[in-house]
Amino acid sequence: MAVYTEVSDDALAAFLAEYDIGAMVAFRGIAEGVENSNFSLRTTTGDFILTLYEKRVDPTELPWFLGLMEHLAAHGLTCPRPVHARDGDALRQLCGRHAAITTFLPGVWPRRVRAEHCGPLGAALAALHQAGAGYAPTRRNALGPHGWQPLLDRARDRADEVQPGLAAELDAALAHILATWPATLPMGHIHADLFPDNVFFLDGRVSGLIDFYFAATDLLAYDVAICLNAWCFEPDFAFNVTKARLLLSAYQRVRPLSDAERAALPVLCQGAAIRFLLTRLYDWLNTPPGALVTRKDPLEYLRRLRFHLSARDEHAYGL
Amino acid sequence: MAVYTEVSDDALAAFLAEYDIGAMVAFRGIAEGVENSNFSLRTTTGDFILTLYEKRVDPTELPWFLGLMEHLAAHGLTCPRPVHARDGDALRQLCGRHAAITTFLPGVWPRRVRAEHCGPLGAALAALHQAGAGYAPTRRNALGPHGWQPLLDRARDRADEVQPGLAAELDAALAHILATWPATLPMGHIHADLFPDNVFFLDGRVSGLIDFYFAATDLLAYDVAICLNAWCFEPDFAFNVTKARLLLSAYQRVRPLSDAERAALPVLCQGAAIRFLLTRLYDWLNTPPGALVTRKDPLEYLRRLRFHLSARDEHAYGL
Repeated sequence: MAVYTEVSDDALAAFLAEYDIGAMVAFRGIAEGVENSNFSLRTTTGDFILTLYEKRVDPTELPWFLGLMEHLAAHGLTCPRPVHARDGDALRQLCGRHAAITTFLPGVWPRRVRAEHCGPLGAALAALHQAGAGYAPTRRNALGPHGWQPLLDRARDRADEVQPGLAAELDAALAHILATWPATLPMGHIHADLFPDNVFFLDGRVSGLIDFYFAATDLLAYDVAICLNAWCFEPDFAFNVTKARLLLSAYQRVRPLSDAERAALPVLCQGAAIRFLLTRLYDWLNTPPGALVTRKDPLEYLRRLRFHLSARDEHAYGL
Repeated sequence: MAVYTEVSDDALAAFLAEYDIGAMVAFRGIAEGVENSNFSLRTTTGDFILTLYEKRVDPTELPWFLGLMEHLAAHGLTCPRPVHARDGDALRQLCGRHAAITTFLPGVWPRRVRAEHCGPLGAALAALHQAGAGYAPTRRNALGPHGWQPLLDRARDRADEVQPGLAAELDAALAHILATWPATLPMGHIHADLFPDNVFFLDGRVSGLIDFYFAATDLLAYDVAICLNAWCFEPDFAFNVTKARLLLSAYQRVRPLSDAERAALPVLCQGAAIRFLLTRLYDWLNTPPGALVTRKDPLEYLRRLRFHLSARDEHAYGL
């Protein structure tokens, strides 16, 4: 739930006057997203999203994110398309924040993932990977494998507060993951955070992918592994191989995985699990106990990590 | 910022199937309102608001609120109109909560009140009071004068934590207010919470009044006093008599205040100030220090209260 910055009506009117998108009709804060302030904006010409970038986003990276979204939209992916103001710039300033208007996407994100979602999701992920191919600028994935050891180092001393033995278990798992991490798989631009709340569906089809602010240039199959973690576990943390098979088959109908990518799935999934485990662990240890913000339980990803560590090969994922 | 209950897509689809408003196109949580969960809902036939009533709302009172909104809308006030399902009922169940769909209103609420807002606001308030006249059921105002002594009693012991001497100052002020409170002014249905975030403007006109969940049957002029508190003080707590004059003149062009109502304005404003002071004080003392929810400063209303206590008569408000 995210509106961190209030936008005065005067400031908004002045901001909109820089665009050719008509006059304001309605303006409401959106209770979704955790990093930025998002507003739904209706004008006389249509519906848009106004995003104010808050302090967790590095402003020097915003042109890369907006450029990627624009490139993806121009290459057929349904994602928010940055709207340019009259002077040509899409990235602007509002209320002391960097700000951008993007197009509105219809649809609803699935609060409960069903098997029917996983095929369309897989196909959309592959389409994203293909559409991104021609976007030349790159962005290093700060939350990729290089980032995991420092994250663990910052949380190790207090990890056992969350569960006795957790520090030692994570040390062993991370050492294994980093030692077996594949170096030479196909690279590209990945979404890196394609959880259900970032995927809209309408009439059983994907109607849009949103929130590209963790996107980076990394192993494409690692993005698949993130989705396997985010979409294919049941609420009791049982891995649902049917969902995984649907996701992977649909992905491969658009972009077949190489033998090396398939063989790497277990370690890629281990890496994805430890990445979300570590950021959640850090947030868990650094969120004040009385705070009303929802702390996401890091141990949910320990359950996933253990599953992936037990996976003998890609057949564990239905391949 | 308010989405307390997540609505699964299955549950939402089943819920919508009970209505004749078309198929879902988009669904987003709204980061406004503090008592209930609100979602903006687009269907193939238009835009709506879905509200799930959370635990601070007494479910036995919901039919009164929805009936009032329906009555007001039918009598020309632009406010959310409850949408009836096929079986005729507007008040339903969703995800274990009472829930209702209402019509969507365009417009933007003023983050910064300007003098130009105050005339249209006054006229809209008077229109609300007139439109409500034919709605027979009544609702006692739990946060009216009867409620203030119990509220102060619950906060008195710790009031001086907020400011030394506050308990004694409030005791004296409340005794004065209750002793001089008018008993025989015109009654009717009042909004009782018509702050700027509950009033939408579009092109300089009021495009809608929302959030009727504090509405009650009480002195009409008390609603005017609430608006004088909510709209006519500057950020430095100076009373802006120009705004007050605009508000009152526009109100009186629709519904003239009686001599007795005008004469009672100072004590009505004192009462309105202490009402918001007391609920804020209670929330302030009972919100955990680390909580990320915004605690509204009760002392802002002490500043207002002192102004109203110093008002010799209605001329202080520009009359």
